[in-house]
Amino acid sequence: MDRLRRSISALRADAILVTHPSNILFLCGFSGSAGVLLVEAGGATLFTDSRYTFQANAEVSGARILIAKKGLLRAVGEKLKSRKGRSWVAYSPSQVMVEQKESLQTAAGSGVRWVKGGNEVEKLRLIKDGEELVRMQAAAALADEVFGAVVSLIRPGITELDIAAEIEYQMKKFGASGPSFETIVAAGPHSAWAHARPSSKPLNKNELVVLDQGAILRDYCSDMTRTVFLGRSPAKVRGLYRAVLEAQEAAKESIRPGVKAGDVDSVARAVLRKKGLARYFTHSTGHGLGLEVHEMPRLGRGETTVLQEGMVLTVEPGVYLEGLGGIRIEDEIVVTSTGAKDLITAPRGLIDL
Amino acid sequence: MDRLRRSISALRADAILVTHPSNILFLCGFSGSAGVLLVEAGGATLFTDSRYTFQANAEVSGARILIAKKGLLRAVGEKLKSRKGRSWVAYSPSQVMVEQKESLQTAAGSGVRWVKGGNEVEKLRLIKDGEELVRMQAAAALADEVFGAVVSLIRPGITELDIAAEIEYQMKKFGASGPSFETIVAAGPHSAWAHARPSSKPLNKNELVVLDQGAILRDYCSDMTRTVFLGRSPAKVRGLYRAVLEAQEAAKESIRPGVKAGDVDSVARAVLRKKGLARYFTHSTGHGLGLEVHEMPRLGRGETTVLQEGMVLTVEPGVYLEGLGGIRIEDEIVVTSTGAKDLITAPRGLIDL
Repeated sequence: MDRLRRSISALRADAILVTHPSNILFLCGFSGSAGVLLVEAGGATLFTDSRYTFQANAEVSGARILIAKKGLLRAVGEKLKSRKGRSWVAYSPSQVMVEQKESLQTAAGSGVRWVKGGNEVEKLRLIKDGEELVRMQAAAALADEVFGAVVSLIRPGITELDIAAEIEYQMKKFGASGPSFETIVAAGPHSAWAHARPSSKPLNKNELVVLDQGAILRDYCSDMTRTVFLGRSPAKVRGLYRAVLEAQEAAKESIRPGVKAGDVDSVARAVLRKKGLARYFTHSTGHGLGLEVHEMPRLGRGETTVLQEGMVLTVEPGVYLEGLGGIRIEDEIVVTSTGAKDLITAPRGLIDL
Repeated sequence: MDRLRRSISALRADAILVTHPSNILFLCGFSGSAGVLLVEAGGATLFTDSRYTFQANAEVSGARILIAKKGLLRAVGEKLKSRKGRSWVAYSPSQVMVEQKESLQTAAGSGVRWVKGGNEVEKLRLIKDGEELVRMQAAAALADEVFGAVVSLIRPGITELDIAAEIEYQMKKFGASGPSFETIVAAGPHSAWAHARPSSKPLNKNELVVLDQGAILRDYCSDMTRTVFLGRSPAKVRGLYRAVLEAQEAAKESIRPGVKAGDVDSVARAVLRKKGLARYFTHSTGHGLGLEVHEMPRLGRGETTVLQEGMVLTVEPGVYLEGLGGIRIEDEIVVTSTGAKDLITAPRGLIDL
């Protein structure tokens, strides 16, 4: 909260309005879905509604709790209106709907001037501290363990949905509060959908199977992908797999403090380009990970964020061929002074099941 | 799509921009997370990115697919810019971020005038057609079955998270693509948190346990809650339970075409007020259900939406007492010409386990 107050000063604002749920969780511990946090120089106020009274009392630290009776934004506006003189209030235009902004303006009146903030809280979340890294390590170990526990179930006849059900069940059995995103289990041509949703299609022999899963443990997310082959993989599949793995290894090798996020993406893309596979790599190389499964920085084309020690990133190149299927290998790494340190230990070679 | 085009004319607009994922799913079948649908008089265009090429080809009907290379909003803006003369384009201010709106304006240029729409697509979704009702009935039956399958597991020593894990596992085993919201299993004082997240706390004897769960089956959501008691329920708990059940029954009785949504809420609230429990009922009586677990109308104070045949609603009064816990009974009903028809069949009386 104190570091955020310094950002407020830098924006020449008197207060900052935090609307994004994981930013609110990060700053004051509140995990409810309806909340707005107003951080001022002298204190902070969490606005929520009566469904969350007990939860807010149990969770929130460093902020006063205000239970709004007639809408959160109206309560925020009234609180701002009660400030003396003119106030400058920062907000994040990428996290406030047009209608919400108008409600705030109406409720706060003309004494409040709105200042466009950027990603002040996201920037504070970029670098994980010791406690966060301990939690992320544990969340990664959990996903790893779940993968180990379910891989033996993957066989022709079982459905994508059955495997996804088992993965999410095991996560919770290992203590996760749930998956960090909808688990992807996609086989055969369906695996060429990078964001496939598990279907009740049974797996067939001689198919690729992509398993992309992650868990939330003590609020922090994990995210890993492995691709297996049901049967004896043909040379074409082995060649594609090797190319993706090389791209991933090269990208990891390139990671160290001072490197730009976009340069890591370029490294992965260059390996696949050399093999004539660049056009099948249809997404970016990775993303930050923490309280959210996708957070800053994106390891994508042209991204200028400079990597620093303590960032946690996924590295996940993939190729997707219509008809044949997809291959993606995704690990989580921490940026250390000497380079990328893996948090996922599951074997990375192609497994023929 | 044709009914939506009539709303466009009513808004005196030439086109409407649909940004909310379940509205896009409803109109053209696309289930990806990154998409924008532009509906014009002469056709419709779905904008998505290269991760979704194959998925869009397989899912979309009634719209042309455009894979945007440099951001969806920029592609939308360029498409709008290419229209001849001045265009009026409707959008929903409650579903577009301030920053997105600015990007659209910049990309589309001054030839496009932006018109504030309301909830045009949501209004089309209010009344379910025959096929939708068949799917919703099946999704409700699935949640019902899951409740029946897990109730026998509820006993002292098992954790909230274990039960939630089992519920979501069974859902998928019965064919659901997943839960329609994070399953709530909350015991003892924790059950007084209306939106509690399951914890690794083991259940104790003589505790209330609230189980609130729903599944997504063929895109449609279900949602039901039952409250059980671990042991022999004391008179106080039985009294509270009876009051909530009476409130629920009275609310259901009051439902028929022509009644205002807010009046159903008043009926439930009046029953609890008579017993001195109104202040423990900290949320609204229910909500619409369909492609989303919360959709229009809200059965809340002052809501003026008039109920019509074919709407699917939850009816879920509850009371929450700090220290003691919560009691909520939630069913799904369809509004028919003769009144509310239940979709959930699980027994509604207090179960002492």
